[in-house]
Amino acid sequence: MHKSSIGPVEPKDFVKDYGEAGFVLENGSTLPALTIRYETYGKLNATADNAVWICSPLTADAHAAGWYTENDKKPGWWDELIGPGKAIDTDRFFVVCSNILGGCKGSTGPATINPRTGKPYGSTFPIITIGDMVHAQKELADGLGIKEFYCVLGGSMGGFQAMKWAIYYPEQVKRIVIIASSPRFSSQALGFEVVARDVITQDPYFNGGDYYDKAQKPDVGLANARKLAHITYLSAIGMEQKFKRAQAQENKSHAVTYSTPFDLNLPIESYLRYQGKKFVDRFDANSYLHIAHATDAFDLETEYGSIENAFKDIGAEVLNVNLSTDWLFPPHESRRITSALLNVGKSVTSLELDTQFGHDGFLIEVGELGKAVGRFLDSKIIPQQGTQAVPVFHEESDFKLLGKLVKEGSHVLDLGCGSGDLLDYLAKKKKVTGFGIEKNITGILDCLEKDVQVIQRDLDDRGISDLKDGSFDYAIINRTIQEIRDPVALLNELLRVAKKAIVTFPNFGHWTTRGSLMLHGRMPKSKELPYEWYDTPNIRLLTVKDFYTLCKKEGFRIENISFQSEHTLSKVLTAIGIPNFGAEHVIATISKK
Amino acid sequence: MHKSSIGPVEPKDFVKDYGEAGFVLENGSTLPALTIRYETYGKLNATADNAVWICSPLTADAHAAGWYTENDKKPGWWDELIGPGKAIDTDRFFVVCSNILGGCKGSTGPATINPRTGKPYGSTFPIITIGDMVHAQKELADGLGIKEFYCVLGGSMGGFQAMKWAIYYPEQVKRIVIIASSPRFSSQALGFEVVARDVITQDPYFNGGDYYDKAQKPDVGLANARKLAHITYLSAIGMEQKFKRAQAQENKSHAVTYSTPFDLNLPIESYLRYQGKKFVDRFDANSYLHIAHATDAFDLETEYGSIENAFKDIGAEVLNVNLSTDWLFPPHESRRITSALLNVGKSVTSLELDTQFGHDGFLIEVGELGKAVGRFLDSKIIPQQGTQAVPVFHEESDFKLLGKLVKEGSHVLDLGCGSGDLLDYLAKKKKVTGFGIEKNITGILDCLEKDVQVIQRDLDDRGISDLKDGSFDYAIINRTIQEIRDPVALLNELLRVAKKAIVTFPNFGHWTTRGSLMLHGRMPKSKELPYEWYDTPNIRLLTVKDFYTLCKKEGFRIENISFQSEHTLSKVLTAIGIPNFGAEHVIATISKK
Repeated sequence: MHKSSIGPVEPKDFVKDYGEAGFVLENGSTLPALTIRYETYGKLNATADNAVWICSPLTADAHAAGWYTENDKKPGWWDELIGPGKAIDTDRFFVVCSNILGGCKGSTGPATINPRTGKPYGSTFPIITIGDMVHAQKELADGLGIKEFYCVLGGSMGGFQAMKWAIYYPEQVKRIVIIASSPRFSSQALGFEVVARDVITQDPYFNGGDYYDKAQKPDVGLANARKLAHITYLSAIGMEQKFKRAQAQENKSHAVTYSTPFDLNLPIESYLRYQGKKFVDRFDANSYLHIAHATDAFDLETEYGSIENAFKDIGAEVLNVNLSTDWLFPPHESRRITSALLNVGKSVTSLELDTQFGHDGFLIEVGELGKAVGRFLDSKIIPQQGTQAVPVFHEESDFKLLGKLVKEGSHVLDLGCGSGDLLDYLAKKKKVTGFGIEKNITGILDCLEKDVQVIQRDLDDRGISDLKDGSFDYAIINRTIQEIRDPVALLNELLRVAKKAIVTFPNFGHWTTRGSLMLHGRMPKSKELPYEWYDTPNIRLLTVKDFYTLCKKEGFRIENISFQSEHTLSKVLTAIGIPNFGAEHVIATISKK
Repeated sequence: MHKSSIGPVEPKDFVKDYGEAGFVLENGSTLPALTIRYETYGKLNATADNAVWICSPLTADAHAAGWYTENDKKPGWWDELIGPGKAIDTDRFFVVCSNILGGCKGSTGPATINPRTGKPYGSTFPIITIGDMVHAQKELADGLGIKEFYCVLGGSMGGFQAMKWAIYYPEQVKRIVIIASSPRFSSQALGFEVVARDVITQDPYFNGGDYYDKAQKPDVGLANARKLAHITYLSAIGMEQKFKRAQAQENKSHAVTYSTPFDLNLPIESYLRYQGKKFVDRFDANSYLHIAHATDAFDLETEYGSIENAFKDIGAEVLNVNLSTDWLFPPHESRRITSALLNVGKSVTSLELDTQFGHDGFLIEVGELGKAVGRFLDSKIIPQQGTQAVPVFHEESDFKLLGKLVKEGSHVLDLGCGSGDLLDYLAKKKKVTGFGIEKNITGILDCLEKDVQVIQRDLDDRGISDLKDGSFDYAIINRTIQEIRDPVALLNELLRVAKKAIVTFPNFGHWTTRGSLMLHGRMPKSKELPYEWYDTPNIRLLTVKDFYTLCKKEGFRIENISFQSEHTLSKVLTAIGIPNFGAEHVIATISKK
């Protein structure tokens, strides 16, 4: 991948006067004019449908890529992802990033002069929402002549905006990427917001928000709010690695900005105070409060009745990414977005990235995130060859058999889908829709490459309880049931979410298996069972007979069962009616009685 | 268990003048006099050795049990644990709880009048340590005539004190209970401390700590610090359950104490502000800063070079308890205390309590904590009958065989020790020392009852990498290896920490097993293998031959192997030299080549 930067970039301003009527906000109040500061990278194509829209998180700005002068210490905040040949390829896309409404980096915000009064808005700046931010960005997009959004991406609060983009403009937004986000702030996150809000508004120099003409600003309050917020952006484990007690006194990289008699002279003290100071130098207290309020108030469940309802009319395909150590937007909150999208039949792929960097991970550790975003954006760019031969699979015989069991055009859930080969095969041969569940990141990335929809999940950890009753025609669990801790519970779940379940497993009652144990006294190894007893993922060994017994006990109807055998003796044994001896591999379709 | 309260109690003051020399603090400065406010429950016995000392956490006080007047809304803060017939039984113990040095509930602190100046200490109050708090408490204990501490207990910062008690007074302190504590604050916790410290000291009314004669106090800063701290005492999941967005506007149980235009009128807002207000009414900013500093500075590793070193001379038996959702003193930090104690050969039992209440769990959910504390304190009270018969065990034949394999007086680690029966047997029959590892709480409580030292741990989660090389004569893994995800890694670990490992497992190569699979084609069930294929904890099935092969591959010397068979045919098969067919159960001693 070509890693060069987009190079020197320039911020521009979109300015529009809305006259008497004003730019109407979601709460009904108006702004007489809008200024939106933005940057663009790459060119809009003739059909105006190659726009990739970047939504800025809370305290970032329009400068997402490139640099202003060659002396800049750092490039734009997502430069690793945006540029020629990068995940968000500026050779192909027209990339836009703007500073959000309410901010203090050039777009209209509380510090802007209100043209109606000639003074800064200050305390009179209206309450804004995430939706207002998106509407303002749409004004800019219209001004730029964008007809279609190839993708809208956002991390953290940028994810809130990306969701609103998809909800408000379902026909124009073709894809969204939501990173480290959630359907709303958790109660814990809201708790921190309350503390930050009080710390700023109770600063004696805050003056109700009217401090722009004063010598003293609410800097102490804002700095303390930032120190607190900064902790929530890191992970506990990341902080432990970053700040060692032993480094006390040694690490003086952060100039002392404040001290108390109660200090221990630890790196964490100077670091947080330095972060607070740095933030005060570049941010405005009113902007912080307004944007924080928009974030706090964002709640798809309250606004639309349910998360499902919020998404029911979107037209975008979704890539939803969470970060393992993010506790501000924790994985279990992010997953609710995925579940809701699945349950309203939208196309979603979810990714669970391992990182030690907490919420900030999406700004710091972009390796696998970049790969996933790149593949998500590429998937329709490299045109699929209609005549392309179905690739050769390791288990092609499985696929053929499974293909025969599945009705044309049906909706399928594939548990333990690996690289998505089966779903890809079934999509091509039988026009099935549906998605896979897979725990390994490599499988997820392969699925993205194949345009197979996939959810990253460990079935032992979380199961499929979030999926709706009867939402699939078939749930397929191919060569996976023997790896599941609680296979009986999972089979019951399969028959809750799907009309039929197709289960395939290696037959532990196969004659070679029996023979290995009977004659040699060792746990068997074979093509079907290639592992040692101590490292096999197959922790649940069952035979054909075991399976019959289980189905009877649980009330599963066996609609269809077939046996695969490669060895001649196996074939004979199966043929003469003793598949429990002969079958190397079993494929069964079951349903609820 | 008799649940009645100790009834009406009265706080008392211990007062001592230290003249010119003063009460000397750990940093060398002095206090001319000490006042310690305390309460006692129960009576000191004639030998003055039945004292149970309760160490108060940061913002609690001496009122741990009972009530002052019949109109009191709440009893003392640990009333559920302390009283006649309760876990800390006031019919048997002389229970003492005092308010800590530096506090503001009656003991000497920054708000106290300095007898040398006639004014409150304020900014002149010296920096104090956890050690100073303990030394001050020792003055009180001496004043009360206590000779020996049956137990010292503390949660949170109280745990810091309990550890210091054991370290400073190794001969007098017989037991300590450490709850929801750690060898030091994590970097994340310290980060929050920095924010709280800055928020208080930057309150315009803090005035460097000299505000006692002023009309305005640093109440805003203290309240905001408390709001922040309060969030850290709860868990994310607990907060989600407690504060529902839907309850907005409805839940008005907490009077509005402050509001901003950025509020959402959510329960979390009024709740946190109410907590802040309530705290300001009962606490002093200087006390908060001083006690917080003592907590921040507490660090066994820095102070003693290592946690091991800190504990190497203690005489106390330890019960160390962590709480699953505690993120202020997270379980992985608490576990370092346990590991260090084990590695210096101290007696420690560890408990991992499941709770949704976060750090506050030890004040709220005392059910199993109470049982554990009760059994830990009881264990020596109900005298062991020297002539008591060894109880009948389910697997007594195992025990006899294992007993023969273990040398008298050796040091033993028992992995998956269950209720501690084997260790109890070996202690009685072979005078062995050592401890067990067990994942289930019922096993832990049983071990406490039997006075068997036990560590609560899931071997699949964390293994034994924290245990020192060669610290045991034997590591026994009895009927457990087949339940381990990575048995090879664990066997290697056993032979790292112990000179020899004794492994017992059901032989999957036994003739009845083979027969079940060979003849009936079903996964076998037997006395040794009583589970179904889908719910068995035995996920690693091995045969005698498999075991030989593994030992060869890993370089384990089989010092001794024996086979158990109940069935006559099994006995015959084993006797004629084919144990892989005959053995129902295998017992092997291995060592490293």
